[in-house]
Amino acid sequence: MEDPADFTMIRAAAARIAGRARLTPILSSPFLNEIAGRQVLVKPECLQHTGSFKFRGAWSAISALPARALRRGVIAFSSGNHAQGVALAAQAHDAPALIAMPSDAPAAKIEGTRSLGSEVLFYDRATQDRDAIGAALAEERGLTLIRPYDEPLVMAGQGTVGLEIAAQAAEQGVTRAEVLVPCGGGGLTAGIALALEAEAPEMLVRPVEPEGFDDVARSLASGRIETNRSTAGSLCDAIVTPRPGRITFPVLARLCGSGLVVHENEALAAMALAFAHLKIVLEPGGAVALAAALFHGHRIKGDSVIVVATGGNVDRAVFLQALESTGPGLRI
Amino acid sequence: MEDPADFTMIRAAAARIAGRARLTPILSSPFLNEIAGRQVLVKPECLQHTGSFKFRGAWSAISALPARALRRGVIAFSSGNHAQGVALAAQAHDAPALIAMPSDAPAAKIEGTRSLGSEVLFYDRATQDRDAIGAALAEERGLTLIRPYDEPLVMAGQGTVGLEIAAQAAEQGVTRAEVLVPCGGGGLTAGIALALEAEAPEMLVRPVEPEGFDDVARSLASGRIETNRSTAGSLCDAIVTPRPGRITFPVLARLCGSGLVVHENEALAAMALAFAHLKIVLEPGGAVALAAALFHGHRIKGDSVIVVATGGNVDRAVFLQALESTGPGLRI
Repeated sequence: MEDPADFTMIRAAAARIAGRARLTPILSSPFLNEIAGRQVLVKPECLQHTGSFKFRGAWSAISALPARALRRGVIAFSSGNHAQGVALAAQAHDAPALIAMPSDAPAAKIEGTRSLGSEVLFYDRATQDRDAIGAALAEERGLTLIRPYDEPLVMAGQGTVGLEIAAQAAEQGVTRAEVLVPCGGGGLTAGIALALEAEAPEMLVRPVEPEGFDDVARSLASGRIETNRSTAGSLCDAIVTPRPGRITFPVLARLCGSGLVVHENEALAAMALAFAHLKIVLEPGGAVALAAALFHGHRIKGDSVIVVATGGNVDRAVFLQALESTGPGLRI
Repeated sequence: MEDPADFTMIRAAAARIAGRARLTPILSSPFLNEIAGRQVLVKPECLQHTGSFKFRGAWSAISALPARALRRGVIAFSSGNHAQGVALAAQAHDAPALIAMPSDAPAAKIEGTRSLGSEVLFYDRATQDRDAIGAALAEERGLTLIRPYDEPLVMAGQGTVGLEIAAQAAEQGVTRAEVLVPCGGGGLTAGIALALEAEAPEMLVRPVEPEGFDDVARSLASGRIETNRSTAGSLCDAIVTPRPGRITFPVLARLCGSGLVVHENEALAAMALAFAHLKIVLEPGGAVALAAALFHGHRIKGDSVIVVATGGNVDRAVFLQALESTGPGLRI
């Protein structure tokens, strides 16, 4: 098995990313603290370039490629956020990019990817294996495949979120907290866990998923990789993957606490509360960790909880649905 | 006439505010650059505590009060953003706060102010003089009046936005730009202009107002204080005041370029574009400078423009109206 990223790689990624990725702030609101029953610190990666943390991993991987590989170009397969991150990082490196997206990806993500100069190909999320498609296309055109999570350089880039959390939470006097992370394939969650193991060892990372797509929670519980029955049909498209990654899962199993699972309607309610009290735009998949902090507090320990809000690339119709939400604890 | 703030006071306010106000990031999007025809850097003060820059001025003024004055309490009159800023700063200083708000203030702002522990009184924006009301109540109860803009300590606090803009723009290689600021009484605009005069002298501050409430633009054109015919009926409630301040106007007249005026529908379209491409929530009054950058580029000079997005305390219905907007250049 391939080695995962390690702390040295995360530090190196941070150096390559410095001045390229945005240092996102830490947000909070007394209203959210009251709902959660504890202090809630939110790391809004929706404010990152391309609207999600994925730009970090993409930049980390593409900036490490030799000039010859950059000239031939890169390929990525993604429901949209990794796609846009790769598209922008490739554009900045003058590298051609081909993105394979599921045909049911949100229009905002498809349009965003195309506008950043990438070629887009579609596949059927329910019937086609995106890994096989990606590998075949990479081979055929001589492109470098930028995997969304099972790639150490990508994991290292996502881990820079953890470095920032450790430093920014310490500035606010918080060194001990559960850190809730929306989790798909596990690249971000594993990267943050590795960064915090070194920089904030009293923090405990916990992955958060939507009901019905809780492969990571079940895998952590059973100790082996479990698979989702389906990967289609979730509003939380950004974090629905078939199963945890081969190289991310051992990191998750070694470092993370148990997974949390929230209902899709709780994610929508969290989006509405983030709109009202943090003035940020989240997509459903980017809001599941906030939903867990707000509505599943009895499953969390400590005076403070840190929440990663991973992305904000949401279609207008879904955002309107969230604003009309009347989920638990919703007061806007 | 009372002296305005000066640069020394802004520096002192920055020291008092450090670690209390959020250092908001600078955001940008290639999509917005394309619409504007130049680089657009956005300072999102909607991410500030209480959802607007007003917290800075409130903290600056309240943190400078002697203990005896803090015990008796403070009073403010405000359409809502200054109210919430004062409410939170007073709460943090254990000082009682009484807030006089116009009866047509957005529900989100009224609720926000009350939830921060302040007592709220209402007045009629169209028929009652809020300055007279504020002065009478302050006298009657022995409260310290925290004026929203004609107060040097408040102006100095708002000026800290200018210090951050100078430093953050320079990090991105921008030292020469027009800086567009949504302008009501002029406290923020004057504070930023004073900070940039010292820290980024090649930048030019320009106030932005909604059509029909362009007292500052007309005052700058005529060289004397001009008055709005009405202060009721604008979606841009946050920045509608009767006239520029007595102590802010001389600063604006000395340091600012000509005012820009945008249509309310352009502010709504800017809100929709900020939702789609910056993932932030703006209120109409907080979006007028972005609207000017996006839709009035022919009236602006230079390769880069810096926009202050002053606040995000918007009622859901108005935000929905913005998302349904189909203003000029709107592509979301």
